[in-house]
Amino acid sequence: MQLGIVGLGRMGGNIARRLMLNGHTTVVYDRDEQSRTVLANEGSTPANDLKSLVAALEKPRAVWVMLPAGAPTEDTINVLADLLDKDDVIIDGGNTFYKDDVRRSIALKEKGLHYVDVGTSGGVWGLERGYCMMIGGETEVVDRLDPLFKTLAPGIGNIPRTKDRAKDADPRAEHGYIHAGPPGAGHFVKMIHNGIEYGMMQAFAEGFDILKTKNSDNLPAEQRFDLNMGDIAEVWRRGSVVSSWLLDLTADALATDPQLNAYSGSVADSGEGRWTIEAAMEQAVPVPVLSTSLFARFRSRQQSTYGDKMLSAMRFGFGGHKEPK
Amino acid sequence: MQLGIVGLGRMGGNIARRLMLNGHTTVVYDRDEQSRTVLANEGSTPANDLKSLVAALEKPRAVWVMLPAGAPTEDTINVLADLLDKDDVIIDGGNTFYKDDVRRSIALKEKGLHYVDVGTSGGVWGLERGYCMMIGGETEVVDRLDPLFKTLAPGIGNIPRTKDRAKDADPRAEHGYIHAGPPGAGHFVKMIHNGIEYGMMQAFAEGFDILKTKNSDNLPAEQRFDLNMGDIAEVWRRGSVVSSWLLDLTADALATDPQLNAYSGSVADSGEGRWTIEAAMEQAVPVPVLSTSLFARFRSRQQSTYGDKMLSAMRFGFGGHKEPK
Amino acid sequence: MQLGIVGLGRMGGNIARRLMLNGHTTVVYDRDEQSRTVLANEGSTPANDLKSLVAALEKPRAVWVMLPAGAPTEDTINVLADLLDKDDVIIDGGNTFYKDDVRRSIALKEKGLHYVDVGTSGGVWGLERGYCMMIGGETEVVDRLDPLFKTLAPGIGNIPRTKDRAKDADPRAEHGYIHAGPPGAGHFVKMIHNGIEYGMMQAFAEGFDILKTKNSDNLPAEQRFDLNMGDIAEVWRRGSVVSSWLLDLTADALATDPQLNAYSGSVADSGEGRWTIEAAMEQAVPVPVLSTSLFARFRSRQQSTYGDKMLSAMRFGFGGHKEPK
Amino acid sequence: MQLGIVGLGRMGGNIARRLMLNGHTTVVYDRDEQSRTVLANEGSTPANDLKSLVAALEKPRAVWVMLPAGAPTEDTINVLADLLDKDDVIIDGGNTFYKDDVRRSIALKEKGLHYVDVGTSGGVWGLERGYCMMIGGETEVVDRLDPLFKTLAPGIGNIPRTKDRAKDADPRAEHGYIHAGPPGAGHFVKMIHNGIEYGMMQAFAEGFDILKTKNSDNLPAEQRFDLNMGDIAEVWRRGSVVSSWLLDLTADALATDPQLNAYSGSVADSGEGRWTIEAAMEQAVPVPVLSTSLFARFRSRQQSTYGDKMLSAMRFGFGGHKEPK
Repeated sequence: MQLGIVGLGRMGGNIARRLMLNGHTTVVYDRDEQSRTVLANEGSTPANDLKSLVAALEKPRAVWVMLPAGAPTEDTINVLADLLDKDDVIIDGGNTFYKDDVRRSIALKEKGLHYVDVGTSGGVWGLERGYCMMIGGETEVVDRLDPLFKTLAPGIGNIPRTKDRAKDADPRAEHGYIHAGPPGAGHFVKMIHNGIEYGMMQAFAEGFDILKTKNSDNLPAEQRFDLNMGDIAEVWRRGSVVSSWLLDLTADALATDPQLNAYSGSVADSGEGRWTIEAAMEQAVPVPVLSTSLFARFRSRQQSTYGDKMLSAMRFGFGGHKEPK
Repeated sequence: MQLGIVGLGRMGGNIARRLMLNGHTTVVYDRDEQSRTVLANEGSTPANDLKSLVAALEKPRAVWVMLPAGAPTEDTINVLADLLDKDDVIIDGGNTFYKDDVRRSIALKEKGLHYVDVGTSGGVWGLERGYCMMIGGETEVVDRLDPLFKTLAPGIGNIPRTKDRAKDADPRAEHGYIHAGPPGAGHFVKMIHNGIEYGMMQAFAEGFDILKTKNSDNLPAEQRFDLNMGDIAEVWRRGSVVSSWLLDLTADALATDPQLNAYSGSVADSGEGRWTIEAAMEQAVPVPVLSTSLFARFRSRQQSTYGDKMLSAMRFGFGGHKEPK
Repeated sequence: MQLGIVGLGRMGGNIARRLMLNGHTTVVYDRDEQSRTVLANEGSTPANDLKSLVAALEKPRAVWVMLPAGAPTEDTINVLADLLDKDDVIIDGGNTFYKDDVRRSIALKEKGLHYVDVGTSGGVWGLERGYCMMIGGETEVVDRLDPLFKTLAPGIGNIPRTKDRAKDADPRAEHGYIHAGPPGAGHFVKMIHNGIEYGMMQAFAEGFDILKTKNSDNLPAEQRFDLNMGDIAEVWRRGSVVSSWLLDLTADALATDPQLNAYSGSVADSGEGRWTIEAAMEQAVPVPVLSTSLFARFRSRQQSTYGDKMLSAMRFGFGGHKEPK
Repeated sequence: MQLGIVGLGRMGGNIARRLMLNGHTTVVYDRDEQSRTVLANEGSTPANDLKSLVAALEKPRAVWVMLPAGAPTEDTINVLADLLDKDDVIIDGGNTFYKDDVRRSIALKEKGLHYVDVGTSGGVWGLERGYCMMIGGETEVVDRLDPLFKTLAPGIGNIPRTKDRAKDADPRAEHGYIHAGPPGAGHFVKMIHNGIEYGMMQAFAEGFDILKTKNSDNLPAEQRFDLNMGDIAEVWRRGSVVSSWLLDLTADALATDPQLNAYSGSVADSGEGRWTIEAAMEQAVPVPVLSTSLFARFRSRQQSTYGDKMLSAMRFGFGGHKEPK
């Protein structure tokens, strides 16, 4: 099948590669000429601009936009909307807020265009492991694109089948992609995925922090252990309840840098974590762990907070306590 | 009434003063001679050691130990236990863990001695405002000491009476002291008081942090306000739902140092906050806010955590994300 | 001074009363005729509709809208915007989201109208205690309305002055109202006030929950106390660090109903708590306590959550644990 | 190698089986005769009491106690301590608090006995998958028992090797067991494992709660999705960042009961979760997510809390709000 791809960064480029490795053809555009050339050398048809890209595609066209969420994606979709014809499909594979998907799908529908949102997990590992995809869109459009999704997905692989899964359950889920629902549903599910990810990561972070601190000179000698962080992560990978891909990655990081000296401790966050909390508030769902995980990241990026200083100011006020500088 | 006082720090000294200002007599001891002299000049009978202190008191004796919790208090009580006679009372006014009170009261009872624990809130303000006291002990012993507690307590003052309080309710509560229950109950209630205090302080800290950050250059100009921290604290003092003594103290701190530059942001915690969480766990009571408030203080004392670095390590692992150093 | 008031519920009616008691005149409208009649009997000029209300006011007019946030307020302001003349002022005293204030003020400015947002704390107690007001708007407009605000505010009262407050600090703050900044700033500050309120309330709730549970038959007899909830709340009102208006209210509730049997345990929340978290996320401020307080309310309204069931399902999966039904 | 096993419940019985399947011999005791008979039929030597068990073992003996933590384990170890001879080993494979291990190991050392604590993860799956073991004890004793641990551990299996793990790293970790440190270190690491487990579980629970609620009739129709819980869990199992054994178990539960109707929502907790928080407090490590996860379980077991009622009482106090019953 043929796919147009706009945005040839780490994700977009590897999507093109994984498709071509499996017999699909791609027409690609990136504002960086070098990126286009690289893909052209690997078999893609390069386009010099969006107009050429659209012209090079057969109808009904499918164009996958793989750009940073926000203005870059929005602007590109707006331009494509004017270039495309009835029944063509725009796929947004980026980290878009699901309400933007809903809004766009309605606007595009008025022009006879289709909109599909694909929440994609797998990051830099997608080329090798395949992409876990959560897809929102009209059923017949998602079905039309199925050959692409099937190729991009990880497939059943050597992950054991879920024992009691119904015979008539949607087989796509086992292959690592689902049609989650109407436009927006794909990014909604991906958003929650990331919210959960934050919580799981923070759980590991807090647990290892206790383990690490148990080695600390600050403890009386008789209370101290000399725990090996790398071995602990490694041992949990087999047979333990916390075995997970995040633990695999942790074990890998600790294998070469058990003190994690390569990292400053300042942790970024992306939109999904915040939107997850917003969704929870809209739906009145208690999410103390997911929110606290997000706030731990906010905190990690600050030396000290105004709030902390205020605590000290109050302590001084009622007790004359002077905090150590 | 006569009281022996051991420990003439900020608290012990002012307790002696407040008692003497109201017609009681005191026999005082502190290992620091200078402190004893100061109090002697204000009317106390100084003692050179615990033995002399005990000798100088009339039976049945009452000795108030006002020392740091842990070894200093424990050791002093052990010495006193050997010096005192049947029916004498040891009062622990420090920040003792309530289970230590229970243990001690049982041990002292075997010697015919009484034990009273007094959780005291009021800090440096006690001399002026009076001490809010939560008292644990046998009823007849607490009653015997009532003249002391009545004097030390704030009294009804100009705080409006609670509208619907029953006519036959314990009048001591309105005067700022209660007999909470058997030995340990006083410090238990004080411990929870401090746990609540942590939560209230953190609520103010977080709220003002948002207010302060709303002024920040990091925000786009059109989203920025220029809020006056001191005025906001001041305005809430009258008629608002959050009016409180902690807010009064905050307003005072902000009046002269709205940026709170005097403080490093490193916030200490004392035993009560941690014991509150332990008690909650023993009783299976959910206390996410009290615990999170405690942990915010732990966090405030660190530049960065091993856990935060681990988050970055995982992010690098699955997404190739490099955190800014 | 003359003020038009739209909405004669608990808040709007009492605002009219407090103004009239202090020499101001009011023209009032409520869609409920009965409410208008009541106020007319107390001295207000009643209007049968918004048009008549506008007609009855002298220019430049000031109309205070005191309605539920959202559609009722929005619709009323839209109608008023068409009826009013250049330089008239619309005051929104409700619980409006501050971004709506910003939007409205810009739209009204194009018509030559002014917009003032007043975040009001004080609830049912305002008539008696005065309203703590946080005001957003253009300086000259807020100044023009000052006589109204001054009357509605609590005034200095018998609350002790903040010791170190600068001589040249804005005197309004001490009287219980501030001009916080441009349109939206008033509701922004009020929003944070409520966020803090949630945190303080939850701190008390958790602390008293531990106290109450310490009396429980579920504990071994030797660990149990028989703490008196009402006395504890009462004693903390004088001299303790947690003394506050919220504690006063708690003491009042416990005085007549120490088991709190009048309440189901299902706790509502209003917009401000949620918006506070949103603001914190926009500004990357860690607010784990404010958010957790909000989520405790969400949780309180559910018998059990799907999430809780999922925990049990996992426990059964890895350990064969059967949870008690 | 020969091992004595006391306690033939799910864990103890399967440990015996896995050992015998791999050429080891076992002498077993359980106070339930039926359990002994079952194991005897599978090849174990049954003992009628602890004395016979000790008598049936060759020196130096190794006895694995696999009983509920607390009194059952403590009492059994005390009896064994009197029966065993110098250089014999007692292994505690239960969920013991690590400070109890430290205490016991010191007491047993005085008698010339050795103590080994084994934190074991794997639950009902251990027979099939092997047990992930975290071991505390003296090096030469742990080494002596290595054949047993090697057999019980999962082995490398088909889990990919950690890429950068050092050639000279302890090979046992890859096989699913580690010698974590001196007595107590095994259960310490296992305790933190469970703390992390709580956090990960709660992250999934909260995330799926949002997903589930997004289907709810309480939402306006246009905001509602019709998400398939089972498919979402399934799709994340391949290629996503949250893939994990807990997710596998979740997918399995959702495959047959997507509403999770089999569960009441009342979730138990065991000691490790609480001890993890205690350890964090001792070491001043901020663990807001691990603690909040524990408290969510406490909350799940209550219809409503006294604290929640207090929130309503305050809301009524300041705003006249009546909560729905």
